[in-house]
Amino acid sequence: MEDRIQLANKYIFKNKQNILDSLFEILEIQSISSDPKFKQQLNKGAEWIEMYLKKIGIPETRIFKTQQHPVVFGEFSKYVKDKPTILIYGHYDVQPPDPLDLWKTDPFTPTIIDNLIYARGASDMKGQLMVVLSAIQAINATSDLPVNIKFMIEGEEEIGSPSIEEFLQTNRELFTSDFVLNLDAGMISKAQPTIVYGLRGLAYFEIHITGPGHDLHSGLFGGIVMNPIQALSTIISGMINDKGIIQLPGFYDDVLPLSEEERDQLKKLGLNDDYYLEQTEAVVLFGEEGYTPTERIGARPTLDVNGIVGGYTGEGQKTIIPSKAIAKLSTRLVPKQTPEKVINQLQDYMKQHAPKQIKWEIRQLSSDPACITNPNFYATQCFADTLRTVWGKEPIYKREGGSIPIVSHMQKILGIESILSGFSLPEDNIHSPNERMDLDVFWKGIETVIHYFFKIAEGCK
Amino acid sequence: MEDRIQLANKYIFKNKQNILDSLFEILEIQSISSDPKFKQQLNKGAEWIEMYLKKIGIPETRIFKTQQHPVVFGEFSKYVKDKPTILIYGHYDVQPPDPLDLWKTDPFTPTIIDNLIYARGASDMKGQLMVVLSAIQAINATSDLPVNIKFMIEGEEEIGSPSIEEFLQTNRELFTSDFVLNLDAGMISKAQPTIVYGLRGLAYFEIHITGPGHDLHSGLFGGIVMNPIQALSTIISGMINDKGIIQLPGFYDDVLPLSEEERDQLKKLGLNDDYYLEQTEAVVLFGEEGYTPTERIGARPTLDVNGIVGGYTGEGQKTIIPSKAIAKLSTRLVPKQTPEKVINQLQDYMKQHAPKQIKWEIRQLSSDPACITNPNFYATQCFADTLRTVWGKEPIYKREGGSIPIVSHMQKILGIESILSGFSLPEDNIHSPNERMDLDVFWKGIETVIHYFFKIAEGCK
Repeated sequence: MEDRIQLANKYIFKNKQNILDSLFEILEIQSISSDPKFKQQLNKGAEWIEMYLKKIGIPETRIFKTQQHPVVFGEFSKYVKDKPTILIYGHYDVQPPDPLDLWKTDPFTPTIIDNLIYARGASDMKGQLMVVLSAIQAINATSDLPVNIKFMIEGEEEIGSPSIEEFLQTNRELFTSDFVLNLDAGMISKAQPTIVYGLRGLAYFEIHITGPGHDLHSGLFGGIVMNPIQALSTIISGMINDKGIIQLPGFYDDVLPLSEEERDQLKKLGLNDDYYLEQTEAVVLFGEEGYTPTERIGARPTLDVNGIVGGYTGEGQKTIIPSKAIAKLSTRLVPKQTPEKVINQLQDYMKQHAPKQIKWEIRQLSSDPACITNPNFYATQCFADTLRTVWGKEPIYKREGGSIPIVSHMQKILGIESILSGFSLPEDNIHSPNERMDLDVFWKGIETVIHYFFKIAEGCK
Repeated sequence: MEDRIQLANKYIFKNKQNILDSLFEILEIQSISSDPKFKQQLNKGAEWIEMYLKKIGIPETRIFKTQQHPVVFGEFSKYVKDKPTILIYGHYDVQPPDPLDLWKTDPFTPTIIDNLIYARGASDMKGQLMVVLSAIQAINATSDLPVNIKFMIEGEEEIGSPSIEEFLQTNRELFTSDFVLNLDAGMISKAQPTIVYGLRGLAYFEIHITGPGHDLHSGLFGGIVMNPIQALSTIISGMINDKGIIQLPGFYDDVLPLSEEERDQLKKLGLNDDYYLEQTEAVVLFGEEGYTPTERIGARPTLDVNGIVGGYTGEGQKTIIPSKAIAKLSTRLVPKQTPEKVINQLQDYMKQHAPKQIKWEIRQLSSDPACITNPNFYATQCFADTLRTVWGKEPIYKREGGSIPIVSHMQKILGIESILSGFSLPEDNIHSPNERMDLDVFWKGIETVIHYFFKIAEGCK
């Protein structure tokens, strides 16, 4: 086993430039799933993934159409008797790159500066996907894959995977596997391998406010109508009080209290205020009273306005009272909270607090429940062992603030557990301008996955 | 005198198409003063005006450069002995046309539908400017101008005329006149000629909020930092209470109480709630408690958010906490309030109410004091007489919500009074999509100005 790992690692060392060239190819594809304008780019992304799976030695591949963006399936199984079948999950879609003026390089022209690749998707998750694909490529090029592998690479992760539940229901048999390897999470720092065992859910909304029937001259009509921006501001302002507590009626009813044991565990992460101040570059931190930042991110529900727009936003001045104002907002949910209840709570809040002089409408953009995975699952423990070996440090277990809806779909529909880890860093600016991937971590990630495939094939000895 | 009026009116009747062609030419020029991108279009607008002044028989013209957009000067004086010199004020700049998707026709492709010309600037004020220019053209073509005339046509009215104060100081001699004819105001309805004797001032600001140093993933960092949109919403929400009263400290200190006489006068306008509901298409009206809508618009100060933007505003969802959020807001001021005090009040408000977890900055975009003109001024009374004759209805006197800073500059620097009237209608959608000018009113406006020039030349007999 050690020999075969060495051979694969050597292959990577010799082929670094080829691997980077391929990563650059996929990073250049503008696969922004939230914007219908980029539909063709999503198709291009799926085709590139299928091409690449064939290139690295996956014999069976197929692109499945869905309501929105295609899923790429791949299979290398039935070959390795009595060894587990691992379902590799990934996504080839990315977040929009806005605001473009804050990027130092073009988001779709990958650029290496100081050993960091800058590009939208470099870290989340085209880079992380390339970690697994490169590991498989290296093994196939130097010996044989010691395990069976299936792939499900989707194009809707960044919009909450709306097609995936139905798709998985329809294609359950195809995806039969022992467990999922999902490297869409990350490490808490460059030297600290991390396994994630809890994820928050996501419910995303738009609030549309209409005041006057058309934009009005603020001199001729100012003072006689409710300004929709004023109304929307009042609505948003009231949603969180000055102690950081969310005011949607009943919002915390189903939230499980944090056990002392969990609090101790989270404390062990050693992520103090200074750590978060450095990561966020905020003046001071702010959040729900009575909880540490790590507890708030991992184990408490939150609400954030993700965008707001109304009236004149160009250069200079325009003296209008706009007809409309819109906010995008989302809540991160913890286990037991459901998106269905949250939309009702938001409706209740609006009925109680929206000014009577305006019309309002709520549109739900996505809804995914929170989930918790079992950190003691044998394949997860084996991944932890591998991390310890390759990184020389005990991995830590963390509840994560982000949402990866696929994890609970895999549990509910396929009945299988996911290993949730990855090689993204907090400073990688995922979802933000100047997203990047640290190449040191990238190469070590490939080494980790090569090692893991052999280790799990040997029953984790 | 009656003969010469008739000749000029006949000229207009015969040359309607030519006049409309010229109006279309100036309406096609995208002279949006607030946006630096359109600088060349402003120069084009000034050149067109100078060309047109020459065409209608104004012997001396000149374009003056300013810090921003040029002023067009014209003079037909020293010719008519012992007659007054009237300074015609106008502006060739327009408001931005956004939001473009709400226009039924292209804002810079003037289109006549049902006797209404749709175009940005059709009413405010290229159309109204053409009313005066056409009157002069008709008189010059059929007899001689009975009065002396000067022109000051500027390109910065829609951005608060920032260069004009200094420009007037420097060129006082050039503009020596007896009074100003300023037709940048309007009528309260199609059959009701109106003279404006009070205008509100304007102080326009941007509030810039910075939270985290860069956009953050709302899952990984939600719950630990103050969201700048949340902070901005709280700031805006607190600025006006639920009784419509503005909360800037000391905001009402210098506001003169409305006298019973003034309240009676405003009541006589007969503008009830139904009128304003129809004009605004709002569900219900909202404004400062204890005042009628007409009082609030004309004689009370107001505050409106004119625009807001922050975070992701494209299609679909993006799960970020933005680094920044910006609001544009303006206050309309009544006499005795000063823009200088208002910015201090806004600073005080921010110091007291802005959340401590964010950084804020206020930028002042423009500041103009309110003004009141003398409704008993002889030239204004003469204009009122003319309106009565041509429209067959007693004109009403009104305090107006809009701001025309030039009026107080003319008072302070040139020491002359302005006649403030015009032929814009409340339903003309000025500053809004589908701005338009009613052609019936346009032709009757020209007739009014022709009549006025002869009447004032005769000492208003």
